Amino acid sequence: MKIAVLPGDGIGTEIINEAVKVLKVLDLPMELEFAPVGGAAYEASGHPLPEATLNLAKAADAVLFGAVGDWKYDKLDRPLRPEQAILGLRKHLGLFANFRPAICYEQLTHASSLKPELVAGLDILIIRELTGDIYFGQPRGRRMAVDGHFPGAEEAFDTMRYSRPEIERIAHVAFQAARKRNKRVTSVDKANVLETFQFWKDVVTEVHAQYPDVDLDHMYVDNAAMQLVKAPKKFDVVVTGNMFGDILSDEAAMLTGSIGMLPSASLDKNNKGLYEPSHGSAPDIAGKGVANPLATILSAAMMLKFSLNRPEAAARIESAVQSVLSQGLRTADIWSEGTQKVGTREMGDAVVAAI
Amino acid sequence: MKIAVLPGDGIGTEIINEAVKVLKVLDLPMELEFAPVGGAAYEASGHPLPEATLNLAKAADAVLFGAVGDWKYDKLDRPLRPEQAILGLRKHLGLFANFRPAICYEQLTHASSLKPELVAGLDILIIRELTGDIYFGQPRGRRMAVDGHFPGAEEAFDTMRYSRPEIERIAHVAFQAARKRNKRVTSVDKANVLETFQFWKDVVTEVHAQYPDVDLDHMYVDNAAMQLVKAPKKFDVVVTGNMFGDILSDEAAMLTGSIGMLPSASLDKNNKGLYEPSHGSAPDIAGKGVANPLATILSAAMMLKFSLNRPEAAARIESAVQSVLSQGLRTADIWSEGTQKVGTREMGDAVVAAI
Ligand SMILES: CC(C)[C@H](C(=O)O)[C@@H](O)C(=O)O
Ligand SMILES: CC(C)[C@H](C(=O)O)[C@@H](O)C(=O)O
Repeated sequence: MKIAVLPGDGIGTEIINEAVKVLKVLDLPMELEFAPVGGAAYEASGHPLPEATLNLAKAADAVLFGAVGDWKYDKLDRPLRPEQAILGLRKHLGLFANFRPAICYEQLTHASSLKPELVAGLDILIIRELTGDIYFGQPRGRRMAVDGHFPGAEEAFDTMRYSRPEIERIAHVAFQAARKRNKRVTSVDKANVLETFQFWKDVVTEVHAQYPDVDLDHMYVDNAAMQLVKAPKKFDVVVTGNMFGDILSDEAAMLTGSIGMLPSASLDKNNKGLYEPSHGSAPDIAGKGVANPLATILSAAMMLKFSLNRPEAAARIESAVQSVLSQGLRTADIWSEGTQKVGTREMGDAVVAAI
Repeated sequence: MKIAVLPGDGIGTEIINEAVKVLKVLDLPMELEFAPVGGAAYEASGHPLPEATLNLAKAADAVLFGAVGDWKYDKLDRPLRPEQAILGLRKHLGLFANFRPAICYEQLTHASSLKPELVAGLDILIIRELTGDIYFGQPRGRRMAVDGHFPGAEEAFDTMRYSRPEIERIAHVAFQAARKRNKRVTSVDKANVLETFQFWKDVVTEVHAQYPDVDLDHMYVDNAAMQLVKAPKKFDVVVTGNMFGDILSDEAAMLTGSIGMLPSASLDKNNKGLYEPSHGSAPDIAGKGVANPLATILSAAMMLKFSLNRPEAAARIESAVQSVLSQGLRTADIWSEGTQKVGTREMGDAVVAAI
């Protein structure tokens, strides 16, 4: 098994180091190859996603990704900014299915902004389509407006779009995931305003006919943003487009209070995937040794399960993480009175010890 | 002063009745004219926004709006659905500036999903651009894909767009509103992905040069969805586009716990406006006399202040609402142990009595 390891920027290197430590102690037949990505790659070679990095990712069985981005790159032309690396990887590897679990860890219930009774035991799965929608739709750019409120004025524009097969394949992913859970899918759209999402709703409804054992309901995105706050536990699997999924998955992750703990997987049609923590590169705490490595460690577990067919190894990591939490170890982001504050490396060491 | 009163569907008539009662007791030189809108108008005349209703709204000094929509219209062709009425009014009246306050009423702190300390005293103002963006951008529709992942497949598409003057005018509205508050504006965009919102960010930054006394920061929409959950009080004025504003304003409203209390205003360039509660038509409780009329009553207060230049009358309504809350009166949506549950009409009567 060959794994491309792309640490990236900010806390990326620190958290990836701990995940790598954990993978190594499992002693699996696994080859790890490192490559720069994001700002780090731009500094080294002038591009956030160098050919060599992309080729490595293509050749590997899975990609373990840290995080990219730093304010200092804000002024670069868009194609050179760190985020382009992650968009490029998604596109070139065909990673259309993004799994973002929003789980509230029992030991961290108090860390949520929400009242404990609303989040205790929360376990929802947001499935975000990741290679379509307004993220990649053409045409886009700047031009002179020929109609609208101010014809003749300068304007910028983007194209939202979804084709039938794109919607079908993500709907299948969602219904199949729901079958392994509580058999409920909520498809989030804005069919009352957007042609794209009326089509989305129609196609998801059609695909649903093949999954009579799974319940499907439809919800407008504005309502979904509200219901996540009001009663998150009512959801099981949420499936939505790239743009709405970006917003809702972050909202859901934050309201668990466990965002420093949440992994994610982005899969292609053969279950090859890219695995990364749900949080970002946190340049403000980079290099200080205080970042929480658990989301990245759990991303490595997801990788073992989804792409490398090693569910028992994944389970070992997951129960080791449970065990360090039960020991009361906490990085700063999840620390509370009565628990023991540890740094990035100590947390990684504790997981290794628990394995 | 001529006011168009459009009750609409669901609980619309019930809540509008109470607001009208409150307006009448103020005894101002005010003419109220009623017209059907939404599903009610479709039933009566085959269109959700009949000519006569639109003309009345155009001729009036302000519009007081209830709510539209009911599941039973879901199967109609889109141009005939109730929501088209509200979109049509926004467009034809040029109501580009939507004010959505997210206030946590002291007496209702416990009603929020969030921990009391996170929302106590919360008072943020979301300013949503309301006549542009992907809501109205052309072209849109269905077609055969000529490129993308599945050329030749059926696809649906929409166009996101903003022109410079559209962004400039909403930016001015936001900076001017901030001057009357805590002088901080957060502009929410997705400049890292969308051409439209890179332009948005650029133009907002340019307009900001005219408001050196106001602080401006920029935030990505996914991060804004998180920060609203994590630390809502950090915001003062939030300005964003139509689509992101739809999502974030509902999220913010719900997290106050006071959504049944939150009014909104949608203004044109002369401060003529449409006023409506932030909540919807709630067909599930329509006709039962249990809906909370306070958001609509407070919308009438906003109307007096913003469009009719009667700030003292607005203040009388607002303090009457404070007073009924302090008396412990609550409709079902905000009821809690130890307070007195009242119906729609009793709540309206109590406000009238307090005036
Ligand atoms: C960095 C950015 C382009 C990206 C996105 O919008 O998809 C990020 O927010 C994410 O969710 O992975
Ligand atoms: C009903 C719908 C078209 C509308 C919108 O999306 O703008 C509503 O959600 C709102 O926020 O007023």
